Amino acid sequence: MSRWLQRPAHVTDSPGKLPGGFRAAGVAAGIKPSGGLDVGLLVCAEPACVSATRYTRSGVLAAPVLLSRDRARQDAIRTVVVNSGNANAATGNRGFEQAARTQGAAAMATGVAEDQVAVASTGVIGVQLDAGDVIRGIARARGELRAHGHGDFSEAIQTTDQFAKEVEVDVALPSGTVRLTAQAKGAGMISPNFATMLCFVQTDAVLDAAFADVLLGLCVGRSFDRISVDGQLSTNDTLIFQASGTSGVRVVAESEDATKFGEALDWALRKLALDIVRDGEGSKRIGRVVVRGGSAEVAEAAARAVANSPLVKAALHGGDPNWGRIVQAVGGALTGTAPLAVDVFIESVQVCGAGVALPFDVAALGEAVSGDEVEYDVVLPGSGAETEVFFSDLSHEYVTINAEYTT
Amino acid sequence: MSRWLQRPAHVTDSPGKLPGGFRAAGVAAGIKPSGGLDVGLLVCAEPACVSATRYTRSGVLAAPVLLSRDRARQDAIRTVVVNSGNANAATGNRGFEQAARTQGAAAMATGVAEDQVAVASTGVIGVQLDAGDVIRGIARARGELRAHGHGDFSEAIQTTDQFAKEVEVDVALPSGTVRLTAQAKGAGMISPNFATMLCFVQTDAVLDAAFADVLLGLCVGRSFDRISVDGQLSTNDTLIFQASGTSGVRVVAESEDATKFGEALDWALRKLALDIVRDGEGSKRIGRVVVRGGSAEVAEAAARAVANSPLVKAALHGGDPNWGRIVQAVGGALTGTAPLAVDVFIESVQVCGAGVALPFDVAALGEAVSGDEVEYDVVLPGSGAETEVFFSDLSHEYVTINAEYTT
Repeated sequence: MSRWLQRPAHVTDSPGKLPGGFRAAGVAAGIKPSGGLDVGLLVCAEPACVSATRYTRSGVLAAPVLLSRDRARQDAIRTVVVNSGNANAATGNRGFEQAARTQGAAAMATGVAEDQVAVASTGVIGVQLDAGDVIRGIARARGELRAHGHGDFSEAIQTTDQFAKEVEVDVALPSGTVRLTAQAKGAGMISPNFATMLCFVQTDAVLDAAFADVLLGLCVGRSFDRISVDGQLSTNDTLIFQASGTSGVRVVAESEDATKFGEALDWALRKLALDIVRDGEGSKRIGRVVVRGGSAEVAEAAARAVANSPLVKAALHGGDPNWGRIVQAVGGALTGTAPLAVDVFIESVQVCGAGVALPFDVAALGEAVSGDEVEYDVVLPGSGAETEVFFSDLSHEYVTINAEYTT
Repeated sequence: MSRWLQRPAHVTDSPGKLPGGFRAAGVAAGIKPSGGLDVGLLVCAEPACVSATRYTRSGVLAAPVLLSRDRARQDAIRTVVVNSGNANAATGNRGFEQAARTQGAAAMATGVAEDQVAVASTGVIGVQLDAGDVIRGIARARGELRAHGHGDFSEAIQTTDQFAKEVEVDVALPSGTVRLTAQAKGAGMISPNFATMLCFVQTDAVLDAAFADVLLGLCVGRSFDRISVDGQLSTNDTLIFQASGTSGVRVVAESEDATKFGEALDWALRKLALDIVRDGEGSKRIGRVVVRGGSAEVAEAAARAVANSPLVKAALHGGDPNWGRIVQAVGGALTGTAPLAVDVFIESVQVCGAGVALPFDVAALGEAVSGDEVEYDVVLPGSGAETEVFFSDLSHEYVTINAEYTT
């Protein structure tokens, strides 16, 4: 596991069933040319199930995102239907209709209201999706729904992910133990068309919908909002958090239960976010840049510039402690601020002080940046702000996949 | 030559001397490990020489940029001294002193005032430059200054450029013929540490310094401001335009001479800018994205997002008409605007209308994007704005060079 991720002591890995109330399945419906699992269905049997959601902020939204955002109750989603192999993006009214038909079929199949069904898609863009395929998948998945079905569900939402991204834990709260599971997909580089991120999170805790939304927002701000594979925002990103309440353990705002549950959710989403960064084809290592000082806006711009710099990413890939590229990326983001008294540390070794090169042991630092993870710290003038971004490296395989793949 | 570049009829290729008043030289001073030419000296003998300049807007400025910007008369630069092999960036006060000593030595060697000497550097960052090396180079270059010295000067300013980037033309104006020469370096990807752009332009036209500055600003806005190799802003970018006036041909604002001279300068800088985009190691083809519609700010953001998208660049490299990546890049830049009615054309073939996929002949378009240049047109809602950005592709060699090179 990553040194950037500490599982809290009250969170225990525990493979097993989905939280109470949830069942899931994944089937092959012929959408993926490979014949692999490509329709996932996840249902909460509890009418009182509450939910919270997040979607991509792209100006170009896929049909399922538009549908789920505008035609579903964000606080009461019970059924989630996902297809991989086709993003249903840039497909216009016809694509929206296909998403609507999918929503209707999933509602019928799982016995919930249409506005309690969320639809998500990932795959090729600009190709019309045939809802008939998805609906046939839903019909078959319905018969396979089970409390152990999250493995198949997880497989069905993947495209070219190299490994499953899952969480299955028990969370010991002062008021009792609750269960927390999650399935995510996404790998940036390895997605031939898009770096779509999908994530579905389930718990049996009793949560108020408004508090679930606040909690999700806080945790997303520390996880999926803090990663960059290639700085590309997807048309399809979807995150759905559901709480069935079957445990009877009530988690209310500003309680010790809330703190502990929040720590668990925070750990789970950060784990999945790091998994996504790590899962770039050919990716050898991942980086974290921490920027301190400056205003929040300035720190964010600097951190994003470092994380998205192809020169920094290539140096990370090559195991090269090339700090000049860090300085260059920061300077490029903060135009007009020269002379900028920036400090740079790589793996805690200071290589630049107040914008000026410092002597360091090149061999030792080269060894230090040859591991799985590399930490970059940037200190800007001023104080108060602090932010971090996790990022993948830039590999030959990235170019191969993204240059040689043809839609 | 590029279809995006039309040499005006009154501009004639004419290899030969520098414009009247100018002499140049390039020598090997031992700064480049290869032993190649690494100090360039360019001098205008005319005391009335006028100049205009532009420098990088990075928050991290190299010492020679700080020195040239703050300790030279931007409107009256007569001598330019350049070293390659060391950027003299992130070198602090000591680096500034080295640049100042270089300025002093060049002033002495060429008999001009110190504040009429500009200093430029390109190469490795974060390594102290020994002005002694540069000064020995200046001493030797002084003895080699000649009207045909721009070839050596051009070579001395290069780092890992694959070809020389030069202009040598005669410009027929209504009031007489003037000469225009220029030398540039830069190749983004192929520069192991920085995508530094240096450019020096000479003419024997009689120009007012204020008008020269206006003209340079206009032409830079259409050339070096409109290219992106990897979205990375250098610490060292420097552009110096000098007019000796020896032709006696006066070019005053708002005259037919000014229009014609402006067209020639515009052509020259666009040619050099395109040369820089083209000169990425392993680069197979270059792209142009033209964005129409929206506000100027929106069009610029969309065009930059396309030009800097690693997914778009990789598709360009692979000769893949993958228009979904264009839509994704535009959507990612214009968050919160969904649904965005964007049109996309590749090589004049419309592939997306109002955000929706259109049918097209995949084989024919695949053939059309396999040439040296690929044109992408994006039309946003609204009217008025139009902008373009030229960009290089993303190649395996980029990764190799930037991952495997170690400072």
